[in-house]
Amino acid sequence: MRLKSALFVSAAIAFTLPTAAMADEGMWTFDAFPAARMKQAYGWAPDQAWLDKTRAAAVRLTGGCSASFVSDAGLILTNHHCVATCVEENSTGDNNILVKGFTARATSEEKKCAGQQAEVVTAIRDVTPTVKAAIGSATGADAVRARNAAVAKLESDNCTDKATTRCQVVSLFGGGQYKLYTYRKYSDVRLVWAPEAQAAQFGGDPDNFNFPRYSLDASFLRAYENGKPVATPQHLSWNPRAPEDGEATFVVGNPGTTQRLFTMDQFAFQREVALPITLTTLSELRGRLITAMAESPEKEREGKETLFGIENSLKVYIGQVKALNDPAFTGKLAAAEADLKQRSANKAGIGDPWSDIAKSVQANRNIYVERNFATPRNDLFGYALALVRAAEERGKPNAERLPGFGDAALPLLEKSITDARPITPWLEELRMEWSLSKAREYLGADHPQTKLLLGKESPEGLAARLVSGTKLADPAVRQALWNGGAAAIAASTDPMIVYARSLDANARALQKRYDAEVDAPLTAARARLADARFAAYGDSNYPDATFTLRISYGKVQGWNERGTPVPTRTFLGGTFDRATGAEPFDLPPAFAANQAKINKNAVYDFVTTNDIIGGNSGSPVIDKAGTVIGAAFDGNIHSLGGTYGYDGTLNRTVVVSTQAVQEALEKIYPAPNLVAELRGKRR
Amino acid sequence: MRLKSALFVSAAIAFTLPTAAMADEGMWTFDAFPAARMKQAYGWAPDQAWLDKTRAAAVRLTGGCSASFVSDAGLILTNHHCVATCVEENSTGDNNILVKGFTARATSEEKKCAGQQAEVVTAIRDVTPTVKAAIGSATGADAVRARNAAVAKLESDNCTDKATTRCQVVSLFGGGQYKLYTYRKYSDVRLVWAPEAQAAQFGGDPDNFNFPRYSLDASFLRAYENGKPVATPQHLSWNPRAPEDGEATFVVGNPGTTQRLFTMDQFAFQREVALPITLTTLSELRGRLITAMAESPEKEREGKETLFGIENSLKVYIGQVKALNDPAFTGKLAAAEADLKQRSANKAGIGDPWSDIAKSVQANRNIYVERNFATPRNDLFGYALALVRAAEERGKPNAERLPGFGDAALPLLEKSITDARPITPWLEELRMEWSLSKAREYLGADHPQTKLLLGKESPEGLAARLVSGTKLADPAVRQALWNGGAAAIAASTDPMIVYARSLDANARALQKRYDAEVDAPLTAARARLADARFAAYGDSNYPDATFTLRISYGKVQGWNERGTPVPTRTFLGGTFDRATGAEPFDLPPAFAANQAKINKNAVYDFVTTNDIIGGNSGSPVIDKAGTVIGAAFDGNIHSLGGTYGYDGTLNRTVVVSTQAVQEALEKIYPAPNLVAELRGKRR
Repeated sequence: MRLKSALFVSAAIAFTLPTAAMADEGMWTFDAFPAARMKQAYGWAPDQAWLDKTRAAAVRLTGGCSASFVSDAGLILTNHHCVATCVEENSTGDNNILVKGFTARATSEEKKCAGQQAEVVTAIRDVTPTVKAAIGSATGADAVRARNAAVAKLESDNCTDKATTRCQVVSLFGGGQYKLYTYRKYSDVRLVWAPEAQAAQFGGDPDNFNFPRYSLDASFLRAYENGKPVATPQHLSWNPRAPEDGEATFVVGNPGTTQRLFTMDQFAFQREVALPITLTTLSELRGRLITAMAESPEKEREGKETLFGIENSLKVYIGQVKALNDPAFTGKLAAAEADLKQRSANKAGIGDPWSDIAKSVQANRNIYVERNFATPRNDLFGYALALVRAAEERGKPNAERLPGFGDAALPLLEKSITDARPITPWLEELRMEWSLSKAREYLGADHPQTKLLLGKESPEGLAARLVSGTKLADPAVRQALWNGGAAAIAASTDPMIVYARSLDANARALQKRYDAEVDAPLTAARARLADARFAAYGDSNYPDATFTLRISYGKVQGWNERGTPVPTRTFLGGTFDRATGAEPFDLPPAFAANQAKINKNAVYDFVTTNDIIGGNSGSPVIDKAGTVIGAAFDGNIHSLGGTYGYDGTLNRTVVVSTQAVQEALEKIYPAPNLVAELRGKRR
Repeated sequence: MRLKSALFVSAAIAFTLPTAAMADEGMWTFDAFPAARMKQAYGWAPDQAWLDKTRAAAVRLTGGCSASFVSDAGLILTNHHCVATCVEENSTGDNNILVKGFTARATSEEKKCAGQQAEVVTAIRDVTPTVKAAIGSATGADAVRARNAAVAKLESDNCTDKATTRCQVVSLFGGGQYKLYTYRKYSDVRLVWAPEAQAAQFGGDPDNFNFPRYSLDASFLRAYENGKPVATPQHLSWNPRAPEDGEATFVVGNPGTTQRLFTMDQFAFQREVALPITLTTLSELRGRLITAMAESPEKEREGKETLFGIENSLKVYIGQVKALNDPAFTGKLAAAEADLKQRSANKAGIGDPWSDIAKSVQANRNIYVERNFATPRNDLFGYALALVRAAEERGKPNAERLPGFGDAALPLLEKSITDARPITPWLEELRMEWSLSKAREYLGADHPQTKLLLGKESPEGLAARLVSGTKLADPAVRQALWNGGAAAIAASTDPMIVYARSLDANARALQKRYDAEVDAPLTAARARLADARFAAYGDSNYPDATFTLRISYGKVQGWNERGTPVPTRTFLGGTFDRATGAEPFDLPPAFAANQAKINKNAVYDFVTTNDIIGGNSGSPVIDKAGTVIGAAFDGNIHSLGGTYGYDGTLNRTVVVSTQAVQEALEKIYPAPNLVAELRGKRR
């Protein structure tokens, strides 16, 4: 599923050779849509009015997904897997709406989604000169500090109305460009409609990132302000029709992270260092969780979405490892790098950024394990560390704070810390135990950081003591600590806060070392690399994904799987053939109950050539007329290499069709109000 | 721990350039000990009498370890981790001797170890001409069939006394040589002495493959025949002294598998295909097991040795991945290959074996996932498949059977199937569920093999049904099916037998395809590669490890870890400093109880430069005088790359000293009879 993966936070320039067939590659920013190129391939391209209208309806969900407004009353279309945590958190043992599905019969029944915020881009401004001037000739940690200060100031100065706007400076092309994005934000988001999880997740992990697919991965949310649905006149029109083979499609959303502009040394780092550690440790967590969930139906329910997230990430990483271990795939990457090197030779101001990047990668090899295992990975510890850091950072001038703690970032940070969310102690303990034991395994028992993390305790004993002793599961306690600031944190005897305090200095020192030895030289070198790319290839470049708004064009088209053509679409009726009765292929009860009524020939899921990546989940799939014909929810198995490069012959976006969603709204999980609202006839 | 890992069954020639410093590299066969080379480096080398005497005392344990006779009454020294399964299987909830340790006060108290067999080499004969003549000009599956038939005939014709001898033809240098090993075998092996597991495994997984180390990884077994201890006049002398820095040491044992003679394409296959899948799936199994064991003290006890085995293997694989992803390490491999290619250019009869190997590797890439996930991996299924296959194979002439089912192999096979061993149903179900779900994940839900494996069932449902329904946990049932042969198997309605029958045809077809497309061309090409190596480097070659008897020479020496010297030895007293009270660093109770008595200055563990690998666990470490001064039980973390190449500056063998074992026998886990026997004064 195309949920934004949180593991790799990376930076950004264009992958394939411009001379090679570009197919439908590209996650384009709205201010650089390649209209001429599309027109050449498709005989048509959207005009500025089309682009502006679409952009105004595109929604970013801070949980890591994309979405769109589809009515004038703040109704949001996204994927079921983007709201599953909200559905789970609103479930109880007696009323498990994750299993049963949910339909609000009226707005009064709509349920708040903790931590969720909807954001719409209202302006994009190039601030490259300001940021670059601030950095000046500084190097190392000084350069990072100067950049962070400039960014914090830009974000703070340009969003004075913190209640309704958010400003974010984004680095594109790995530091080649800086853009200030302004968002209209809606921090009250509620659940309107969700089908049974079994319908959305039919086929489970085995079918994830595969096609043919039979998944109703769609849901509706609504944006609220002051307790009322917001007015959203600039919304997309709902068009519950079947897609046509070969028709042009646009995906508008927020791809999370790609690394297509990495150098070969950076790819090697992923393949040789980061990915093996990630695969190994995350697989163990998966195993721990699978067994724990089998202990009781309650644990099964409580662990489900966490497991889903882990399995989804793991499948992505496995696909990435496969791509980077495929000589044919990496051969293309190497050829692209060689081409750029050749075109850049002896150009003024470019120098040899590849060697500089290689050096920073080597520095990263030396620090990676320590950084990766600096702090445990569970929510309660996450709250504790965020509270400890926020208390300290808020006492500093805006320009001197750590990234993520500037004035502009504080409202969402506070919301994410203080929103009420159920905490599951056994899950907390399991994750904490796991991350501490992996830290000891990779660092070794004699490493000072292992001693800092564990003292004389075992991972199991320490996790049990902290999770059972902390009061941070209570949002009121977190709010009080937030409000109390540095004094409250210093006075706290909460064991998780005490523990976070004890780890923070080391984690900060590692970050400082990373800034000086890796980030600063890398950013400087990548900025020169961006210059080289623009000089060589002009505006056929697009920046790597950064969880900011992009548009991709493509068409409805299957692919050829080792000689066998894969069809473009599935039909609702296929679900009944694929069901085996055994989990995760058991027929959703509402499908079984309504089998006679369901139109078996309605298009269920379909594939397009659009170029997307994790974070695009929930993106509207739009036709030439600008109407919504589906919601992107996945890529095919080949698309997992999309982190590093796009292959138009194989990579596909997987979409749930509006025709299937309409059928569900009418016959399977009836929501007549919603049907009316989508028709523009809201009661 | 240097337990033989079962995953990679591979084939075999010398790694570093002969011009480079060889240090103490090499796992030498006894008929090709490089005495001249050792003499040059050490000023001394063993003579033939020394070698013969040592060889006669060296023991192979079929469980995957090495050992030696250390008294004239069949007393065997090996590692605790080599007997831990036996100790666990002889434990009960009331009398957990794995936790408490075990000392037989008299031979009558010694406990049988199921499945364990001790073997001593009595002859080695070169049968290369016979096997090569049998293969002749055959290719593909015909070549494999001809080779297997020749091997089966040699093994059967040369060991007519099946009760006391075993014959095994071993392919060395990947098919360059075939040698017939004859063993005197002892199929009744009993447990004599084992310390507390906490003393043997102090530091657990975090300390495994690390040094400094504080581990009493030693135990004693005894070989029996006709219910009585066997006479072993040709044993090593027990010498409970401290090692001296720099003194020469020999390790005599059975290294399991190295892949140092692989080509770059074969290394790429391991790095790109096999290892990522193994790491990922095995890590998940580890996680599943860790959580399951936390459910109850009983499960903790029942799962312990399985978890140990998984974690030990995982650490090896993680080390292998690290080595193959280290450009400095693989650079040496590439340089060695380039050197051999250059020396072999235009030599008659060599051709281009590298290209042929590349082709067979490519074929393996196409078949690997299917073969790897052809059958589930749990003991009860293993019994079922072995019974099903044995029934069919035993009906065929000896020369036409699958490898492992020839007349010469049947006695050990029958013993391994019918020996009484406790079966733990939850563990069986957990492993079966896991392997079936991984099969579906890697093959995809739509793959015919997935359908064959699961039908319409889920991995969980199928595993539960088969494990709860089968009677194969009862050794009498297995014996009856073995005795009943093909008729009994065909008539069986035992669900595990029925299931094994349903999978066998597909698994055999995959093996046949592998034989034809991978094994046959690979063996032919590697035989030519062996010729090339001998032509280029003469007898500085040694074959890759094949779990046959080898001797390695080296010396007592530490190493330099990133600028910090690591000492050669630890002392018993260090245990008390390292103990934290938290598992796995909790002090063994008998150490605590006897703290005052223990000689804190006795050497505990030490390191040597000997070149060993998994399978060497339990190998005697022998001084120039031919006396035992320790038992090898591990390598340091750098030695994990030893699968692919030896680096004398970093790779170390980790040994538990006889001085520490003597101290334990006298003061910590008193065994006066054993002390007397080791002194040659058996009562």
